[in-house]
Amino acid sequence: PEKKGPETLPPYPLPPKSRQQSVLPEDLKTPDHHVERDPRLIRLTGVHPFNVEAPLKDLYDEGFLTTKDLHYVRNHGPVPQVQDSEVLGWEFTVEGLVEKPVRMSLRDLILDYDQVTYPITLVCAGNRRKEQNVVRKTKGFSWGAAGVSTALWTGVALGDLLARAIPTRGARYVYFEGADKLPNGYYGTSIKLNWAMDPNRGIMVSYKMNGEILHPDHGKPLRIVIPGQIGGRSVKWLKRIIVTSQPSDNWYHIYDNRVLPTMISPEASADLPDTWKDERYAIYDLNTNSATCYPGHDEKIALGGVSDGGYKFRGYAYAGGGKRVTRMEVSLDQGKTWTLANITYPEDQYRLASDNEVLYGGRVDLSWREACFCWCFWDLDIPLSQLRDAKDVVIRAMDDSMMVQPRDMYWSVLGMMNNPWYRVVIHNEGDFLRFEHPTQPALMPGGWMERVKKEGGNLTNAFWGEKLSNESDSST
Amino acid sequence: PEKKGPETLPPYPLPPKSRQQSVLPEDLKTPDHHVERDPRLIRLTGVHPFNVEAPLKDLYDEGFLTTKDLHYVRNHGPVPQVQDSEVLGWEFTVEGLVEKPVRMSLRDLILDYDQVTYPITLVCAGNRRKEQNVVRKTKGFSWGAAGVSTALWTGVALGDLLARAIPTRGARYVYFEGADKLPNGYYGTSIKLNWAMDPNRGIMVSYKMNGEILHPDHGKPLRIVIPGQIGGRSVKWLKRIIVTSQPSDNWYHIYDNRVLPTMISPEASADLPDTWKDERYAIYDLNTNSATCYPGHDEKIALGGVSDGGYKFRGYAYAGGGKRVTRMEVSLDQGKTWTLANITYPEDQYRLASDNEVLYGGRVDLSWREACFCWCFWDLDIPLSQLRDAKDVVIRAMDDSMMVQPRDMYWSVLGMMNNPWYRVVIHNEGDFLRFEHPTQPALMPGGWMERVKKEGGNLTNAFWGEKLSNESDSST
Repeated sequence: PEKKGPETLPPYPLPPKSRQQSVLPEDLKTPDHHVERDPRLIRLTGVHPFNVEAPLKDLYDEGFLTTKDLHYVRNHGPVPQVQDSEVLGWEFTVEGLVEKPVRMSLRDLILDYDQVTYPITLVCAGNRRKEQNVVRKTKGFSWGAAGVSTALWTGVALGDLLARAIPTRGARYVYFEGADKLPNGYYGTSIKLNWAMDPNRGIMVSYKMNGEILHPDHGKPLRIVIPGQIGGRSVKWLKRIIVTSQPSDNWYHIYDNRVLPTMISPEASADLPDTWKDERYAIYDLNTNSATCYPGHDEKIALGGVSDGGYKFRGYAYAGGGKRVTRMEVSLDQGKTWTLANITYPEDQYRLASDNEVLYGGRVDLSWREACFCWCFWDLDIPLSQLRDAKDVVIRAMDDSMMVQPRDMYWSVLGMMNNPWYRVVIHNEGDFLRFEHPTQPALMPGGWMERVKKEGGNLTNAFWGEKLSNESDSST
Repeated sequence: PEKKGPETLPPYPLPPKSRQQSVLPEDLKTPDHHVERDPRLIRLTGVHPFNVEAPLKDLYDEGFLTTKDLHYVRNHGPVPQVQDSEVLGWEFTVEGLVEKPVRMSLRDLILDYDQVTYPITLVCAGNRRKEQNVVRKTKGFSWGAAGVSTALWTGVALGDLLARAIPTRGARYVYFEGADKLPNGYYGTSIKLNWAMDPNRGIMVSYKMNGEILHPDHGKPLRIVIPGQIGGRSVKWLKRIIVTSQPSDNWYHIYDNRVLPTMISPEASADLPDTWKDERYAIYDLNTNSATCYPGHDEKIALGGVSDGGYKFRGYAYAGGGKRVTRMEVSLDQGKTWTLANITYPEDQYRLASDNEVLYGGRVDLSWREACFCWCFWDLDIPLSQLRDAKDVVIRAMDDSMMVQPRDMYWSVLGMMNNPWYRVVIHNEGDFLRFEHPTQPALMPGGWMERVKKEGGNLTNAFWGEKLSNESDSST
């Protein structure tokens, strides 16, 4: 064989290497005894079902692309068991209001359709829910700020599949159903057909993540991936695509992934079927959000010594529906004044790929796209002299529709889409500064929210429960 | 001729009747001496150029559709004079990066293309800017909250025009130029080609408003109308459509309709060309916004007498980019608790029109659309007993991307896209309650913002400049 010359590096990031995984002892006695996992993942709902996020710094340290090791997982029940030898023969249907319903295999999907690859950030609608749970218990479990991950997904544009099936008159929605059977039936949800057919939205039927067949937790062997929308619409272990005239009445479509109006209490919500069914409260597009990853919770930095040093604050931000995060702002005085942070958009590097470049068997289908499907990263060097004098560091993102993250939390009964300013408190402890995040994920204690609440502060007073005695400051 | 039977009323609103207009005395000595106008319009930039909004209650009272009498106007200079006899012969071009550049007349546009009609809400990016000007003077003049209007627009889908011209490789933007020559050249601006080609976005080349040829202030005889985006992109008196590889470098595209980061002062902005040219700061989609129209500023309601009565608060809301306003919430305790208001969406009534229904010569092209292009209306009956005990009534809208209007104002040097909670103060004056809006448009005095500022309050302290001595309330 010919010797290869030095390969040209692509202009875009490739995934970091995964670690060797194995079945963990705690999974052996669960239905997921066949699934290999990374022990660093933080379990949010006990041992089973598997709902996890990575430690926030570990997630950030992997960079733009997340390995399957640390990618967040949201499972409602046992993971369907599919052998490698069964992957290509996996069957699914396109049916309902279409002229040409079809049952096909993953092999057909690969052979008969154009394959595409691009990076997509998935976000759980519950990302940052722990903060809401501290204010008032919601019906959801406690995500920290790492319910967000990015991978290179390979598959077929959903619109291509639907176009061949030919939706009929009156078709308005597309329903996806997985193979995961749950107490309330198979997991299933719908989106608008219009979106599904729109190439700009980049909705994909995918069978590869970061160039490998899907990990069982991520839908092996086939799933939907919807850029810019909450993860809950990206159905895993895909078995059926049904074109319909109405939104889905699947239990999980109605009673999950909704933001009910804030005044509806958990008790009242039990008896409001029409409110639950109001499609205006269903979440599709992600809202704009951001978090600080460095400094981490309880991280300390020494004062003294280098008098003129600084600390590089950094973290992530994302927006939904293809929108771009257009600015990140940082305040050291609780929102009175703001400083602009730097932003990098690694996703834009993929737009430089040549038109026919192929990665993992799919065309790198980005050069023509305007939409943003991925998170971005912000950073700001803050002099220690300023940090020493500040009580906290709050951040906010603005998106290209000129919507900005709000100061106030929007609490709702399911605890979703939490996106107020992300606040890290600074404790000046003599020789060093100690940083305190709002919360820690799952049942882990820690964070200024629990502390302030215990001290009797009202977390929803627009000043994070602080006493406002020093408010005379603000009228100078 | 046959006698007509009683006509069936359409399931959607038709425009209210316009009043007889005439040239107003104040316009006689200006270049606009040929333009007939309604004397109720409030002039925001002196006599000329013509920049106006209607009194807020008058606007609201016209209902879903606004007549040309009261539709807001944003003119940068003299209105081009076009005789009725010249309308059909008006020529414009489609040129630039296209295979088949064309010069055509409005007559050709009407004869050769499909005609469509639908309602579109236009909003000036400066709507509610007066509030920002009270906080700190911006470079823009003082819009109140009536820089928003809705009409039935008839014309041709811009994508149809561009498809026939066939954009070439590398085409990414579409530039529109008007016939209005200004100190810095013709008014012109660009949007993304991708948007222009997308039928879901509903961008139109229009020659009829509410069934009549365009009023001179609204672009007679031809203009662009872009649903869901700020009015500044909907170029009037259209002469050229140019497909390009880069965003426009027209002076008005760079130095107008941008939201620079909030920390940039008017002084600093004078020397930041790269910041001005950063497309991330250009405004396209509207952000989510709302206002209270009733009670109006300085309106009084009697107390006593009917002990159990209430007042029906009501107003408008809108979102951008095709998004729907999914909830309106009203607070009587400065954001501690909220009540859900009713919302009506008259736009949805047009979706019921049959597929081939024609109005004003254009197909009523809505039945298949998912997007919202129009404002909606909210109302909430509030018992007098509650109003008597409240200091103010604040409102906020949430859109279907789960972004909510923020408590805090985002000030920027041009003063645009102002969308914090709309706050009406209640003055309990013994026998009656008096309501006070934030501001009044133009140089008109009045409103709680000027009053609080004069009293030394800091309007940006998250509590509208109020003293926070009573903050102990909020930790109970």
